[in-house]
Amino acid sequence: MEGFSDGVFSIAATLLVFDLALHPPGSPLHQVFDEWPGYVAYLVSFLTIGAAWLAHTALTDRLARADSILLRLNLLLLLVVALLPFPTKLVGDALRDPSSERVFVTIYGLTLLTIRLLGFALDAWAKHEHLYSPKEDEGDEEDLRRDRRTLLPVVAAYMVAILVGLAWPVAGVSLYLALALYLVVPFRDIRRELFR
Amino acid sequence: MEGFSDGVFSIAATLLVFDLALHPPGSPLHQVFDEWPGYVAYLVSFLTIGAAWLAHTALTDRLARADSILLRLNLLLLLVVALLPFPTKLVGDALRDPSSERVFVTIYGLTLLTIRLLGFALDAWAKHEHLYSPKEDEGDEEDLRRDRRTLLPVVAAYMVAILVGLAWPVAGVSLYLALALYLVVPFRDIRRELFR
Amino acid sequence: MEGFSDGVFSIAATLLVFDLALHPPGSPLHQVFDEWPGYVAYLVSFLTIGAAWLAHTALTDRLARADSILLRLNLLLLLVVALLPFPTKLVGDALRDPSSERVFVTIYGLTLLTIRLLGFALDAWAKHEHLYSPKEDEGDEEDLRRDRRTLLPVVAAYMVAILVGLAWPVAGVSLYLALALYLVVPFRDIRRELFR
Amino acid sequence: MEGFSDGVFSIAATLLVFDLALHPPGSPLHQVFDEWPGYVAYLVSFLTIGAAWLAHTALTDRLARADSILLRLNLLLLLVVALLPFPTKLVGDALRDPSSERVFVTIYGLTLLTIRLLGFALDAWAKHEHLYSPKEDEGDEEDLRRDRRTLLPVVAAYMVAILVGLAWPVAGVSLYLALALYLVVPFRDIRRELFR
Repeated sequence: MEGFSDGVFSIAATLLVFDLALHPPGSPLHQVFDEWPGYVAYLVSFLTIGAAWLAHTALTDRLARADSILLRLNLLLLLVVALLPFPTKLVGDALRDPSSERVFVTIYGLTLLTIRLLGFALDAWAKHEHLYSPKEDEGDEEDLRRDRRTLLPVVAAYMVAILVGLAWPVAGVSLYLALALYLVVPFRDIRRELFR
Repeated sequence: MEGFSDGVFSIAATLLVFDLALHPPGSPLHQVFDEWPGYVAYLVSFLTIGAAWLAHTALTDRLARADSILLRLNLLLLLVVALLPFPTKLVGDALRDPSSERVFVTIYGLTLLTIRLLGFALDAWAKHEHLYSPKEDEGDEEDLRRDRRTLLPVVAAYMVAILVGLAWPVAGVSLYLALALYLVVPFRDIRRELFR
Repeated sequence: MEGFSDGVFSIAATLLVFDLALHPPGSPLHQVFDEWPGYVAYLVSFLTIGAAWLAHTALTDRLARADSILLRLNLLLLLVVALLPFPTKLVGDALRDPSSERVFVTIYGLTLLTIRLLGFALDAWAKHEHLYSPKEDEGDEEDLRRDRRTLLPVVAAYMVAILVGLAWPVAGVSLYLALALYLVVPFRDIRRELFR
Repeated sequence: MEGFSDGVFSIAATLLVFDLALHPPGSPLHQVFDEWPGYVAYLVSFLTIGAAWLAHTALTDRLARADSILLRLNLLLLLVVALLPFPTKLVGDALRDPSSERVFVTIYGLTLLTIRLLGFALDAWAKHEHLYSPKEDEGDEEDLRRDRRTLLPVVAAYMVAILVGLAWPVAGVSLYLALALYLVVPFRDIRRELFR
């Protein structure tokens, strides 16, 4: 289960680079800056995949065994993760086009939310079926608990971001970025480190 | 054998996303819905690769050793799995074009059937040459037995789907989807879970 | 060393599928058959990568340790393997164009030969520096010995194929295919199996 | 941590091949030679990823455990490594176009430097937090020490190369190549081997 999953996570993350391209007319520096929606979408998607992978690793490290339903739930998660470069490309291409950005930003947000929910479903199933080993790795356990505790606020935040994106697409994508950063950056550990 | 195989399975599954693209004229929502044959082909191919990978994992987990012929049969299976994004793209592009869809849907179905048959050939060879370890993992053993028991019905069903696809291509692809879902969804385990 | 190497081998093999594309005018069946040089190039490159990977696996399985020079030789091998989709594409595109096929078929043959030679260099270095473990796996050892014994005939055959390709490009590519099949198909094991 | 990281390193390295393409008018041999900036950029990027991977492997092999901050630093390194095919493509496309090459060569150099600095940050954090196991592998330890000792000269050399590239872009890229070779080729081990 780990080889295939790590493969899909790392390939989907690396394929995001193909969504970037310069659009020729203009000075080279202007072209590079003009692609900013592509960089923002790259950043959001890479960090979202990174957060999903961190949660997935914490889960598989603690797993004592996998049953057939967990394997299929995992496949469903990977199906959506592997799809992510497509809505990422739509958002990167459309973020300055008022006619299409609302639709694409909404689809993008729903995909990001689905990845989060499926990651949580995996953990809920593993917990419900007692698939975790009792011997706990502190760090993994902490990650899993934090993800469980923050599920409802995170889902609520995604829904707010999607609604905001319907009115102001750029603001919606900014909220997706803030959420991805919140999920990936270990603020508590950094604070603990600073005040040691 | 596992690293390379897991790599090919996960890369082929993740590359399927490049077969998706919007075709500009039309409202954004219309463009997104208009790409439905691409989504169906993505789903069928991803689930077929997923089913092949589940069977492959059950096989390699139970394997005590690999002989030179098994390694080459495995390479042949991977050669066809790595090819799958190509017929997937043909089907996704052609499903609404009456002049080409029959040919491409038939080629697609034959590729899916070949993947299934080569997966079975691996298992048959491993069994014939006593390459499996006696110590059985219940889940893996169950998966292997189910695949052996359902081989003939599944091959027959693929043949029916290919014949149906010659007359009504969309119906053929729908049958491929039904077959992929049948191979991946663990109906028995879900039922057992529900009536526990 | 194995994770990164297996990754490059499997990705390079899977990316070959992007070298395939249909060229629209013509009936769909005609278009599919018309892409035959692409399929031949896919087959040759996939089998060559497969053969290189089989040799590489036999080598890493027997390795007791790796020194810094072996790691860099390995990197050089991977650099050429990762490059292979490019000449493969050139050959697939050009095989029916008399003005360019000679040049591209020659470049392709030189790339295939380089992969073989670098694979051999890895084995020669590991042997010379006593990096192999004494405990031998029979199958791996047999594979390594066969590759050593057949090095000179195989290099000579590649050179003949490259020279033939300068005069008749299609014949050259056919010889590359024959060589790739010779390197991958375990004729001796199949014969032993048949006469058992 | 290793599966996902090895995946991103190997995929980014293998995707570089898509930055290569021939530009049709001209004789085939002329077209092949005319793509030289693409080959140089491929070489620089592949070797830079290779050097980063060698340093990363030495680090993960010696690691006794990973804390949450190391995992995120690692994710940041992978984010930049996965991005590398994009500036590589810009440089490969632009190296003969006087209007854009300065900008793209500078961006490329800054990306290469960032990869080096993030690799060093991982090592510095692991050392600072005592995440390394005391049991030392001689080769890994030697690699880590060499990277630490050469950090300042290497950063200074990258800065010189970037400044040179602002005036003479081709000279800048040549210096990047020299630096990548310096980081990958084990000159000391080769000399030791020669004078044994």
